[in-house]
Amino acid sequence: MKFVSFTTQDRSSYGLFIEETGKIVDLQALEKARNKEQLLPSTLQEGITLGDAFIRRVSDLYDWWKAYPSTLHCLELDKITLTAPIPRPAKNIICVGKNYRDHAIEMGSEADIPLALIVFTKAPTSVTGHQQLIESHQHLTKELDYEGELAIVIGKSGRNIEPSDALSHVFGYTIINDITARDLQARHQQYFIGKSLDTSCPIGPWIVHHTAIANPNQLDIMTTVNGDIRQQSNTKQLIFSIETIISTLSQGMTLEPGDIIATGTPAGVGKGLNPPQFLQPGDTIAITVEGIGTLINTIV
Amino acid sequence: MKFVSFTTQDRSSYGLFIEETGKIVDLQALEKARNKEQLLPSTLQEGITLGDAFIRRVSDLYDWWKAYPSTLHCLELDKITLTAPIPRPAKNIICVGKNYRDHAIEMGSEADIPLALIVFTKAPTSVTGHQQLIESHQHLTKELDYEGELAIVIGKSGRNIEPSDALSHVFGYTIINDITARDLQARHQQYFIGKSLDTSCPIGPWIVHHTAIANPNQLDIMTTVNGDIRQQSNTKQLIFSIETIISTLSQGMTLEPGDIIATGTPAGVGKGLNPPQFLQPGDTIAITVEGIGTLINTIV
Repeated sequence: MKFVSFTTQDRSSYGLFIEETGKIVDLQALEKARNKEQLLPSTLQEGITLGDAFIRRVSDLYDWWKAYPSTLHCLELDKITLTAPIPRPAKNIICVGKNYRDHAIEMGSEADIPLALIVFTKAPTSVTGHQQLIESHQHLTKELDYEGELAIVIGKSGRNIEPSDALSHVFGYTIINDITARDLQARHQQYFIGKSLDTSCPIGPWIVHHTAIANPNQLDIMTTVNGDIRQQSNTKQLIFSIETIISTLSQGMTLEPGDIIATGTPAGVGKGLNPPQFLQPGDTIAITVEGIGTLINTIV
Repeated sequence: MKFVSFTTQDRSSYGLFIEETGKIVDLQALEKARNKEQLLPSTLQEGITLGDAFIRRVSDLYDWWKAYPSTLHCLELDKITLTAPIPRPAKNIICVGKNYRDHAIEMGSEADIPLALIVFTKAPTSVTGHQQLIESHQHLTKELDYEGELAIVIGKSGRNIEPSDALSHVFGYTIINDITARDLQARHQQYFIGKSLDTSCPIGPWIVHHTAIANPNQLDIMTTVNGDIRQQSNTKQLIFSIETIISTLSQGMTLEPGDIIATGTPAGVGKGLNPPQFLQPGDTIAITVEGIGTLINTIV
């Protein structure tokens, strides 16, 4: 199941993206049609917090929809606006730095390959959705860069999670473009400022439920800019696996449902090119992760 | 006005700490007694978001309380539990690093004095209140350290704020103990992991409204451990002033009501002592900031 959040002219809702039809099933409208009452929570974020009960309810509704008038409560993608699946996370986006060997090297040298997880955050105000515009912030940065990343969405609270138990805490997976102002990142030493400009965290297009991803540590990932392939790798190249990331973060720090963790970017960012090539207004970045989909955004 | 949030056996509320009596006026109970209705929002965080209308309403209630039966709706401090004034911030705590010259030097050398603001964050799950216990996390760190800091609470949303306009975006000021696991901070390069252990962000005891602080850039600050003075400075020693911090953070990043910004710590942290002296279970840290009060916590 691919969970989307969206807005229409008069409301916010969430639903499932149906691959076969390219349309969206509005879960809240569907439930109202079936039950004449509203048992689903009002946001996807709240649903994720409800855990298995939410997934059972959604599966149940989805089965009913497939068996019955399955064209009802469907919305054309061009009639709605996708937001990030969690449009306003309840804390900063947690991001892993230099988690692909080749990217660590392109940012400096072999000495940059980390021995321990490097973690920074992006402000919730930086979050935006699929096909939303990314501000170029040209008065602040001359070095805006992309970073295509697989992201984890936590489904179950936990602390001191064992690696062997880590995947049981995952609700699903999505894609993040960890847009970075390289000059600000360097000038301010710690990454937060260079990583937190408004609209610098596109997330989406949807969250794929974990049951649809057999192994998150073996997914192709590709980033294009204006159609040119810039990043092409596989999450099996991660220095710190999905399980290690979750376990390490949870040592002494409680992870919570709805937490979003970007797992790092492979080689091929604009700064790593020779000469470096940064994002300009009009550029379109497309990030594809196997089994999830493609997150597309244009710089304005 | 000193704004507190607290819990009693059966509910959460917020109010004003009254210096003269050492007691707390429960604003929600007071309003109910006066108006038989609830116009104040249910949390201090929401009140801060309402801006001037909230302050007018609270002032009005406070005046009525002073003129009338001013012993009513008062709570003894030992009958309630103070939480952080904002118990669950809507995003990570924003923290400025190495913002006092002498602290930058004690963490390394003169080369550590920053030329640009250094900013990292602490997870909202790390927040705790005045007189709450701080976990020692002894299985994770051997180098738990304190950092006494003045903190800003934003009251008005803004982006690209001019320094001259910065203070108009402040709701008030509070105190933060930026508890840091020095070994984790060093091992993981970026500070987030070493700064985000559960209970590593005591905030309080209250937020002092900005009208009670004539100049936030001239406040004595002192930290004691078990009564011994460890840090003693004044915010006039800040490398980057309160106005500069707010203005710099807001460049391209929207600041929002309820955002909490820790402004940095002066020299005298445990790591800076010779030999270093880290926190042990039973240690009590007290941080006093002029015009605000004293934040006290004990390691367990």
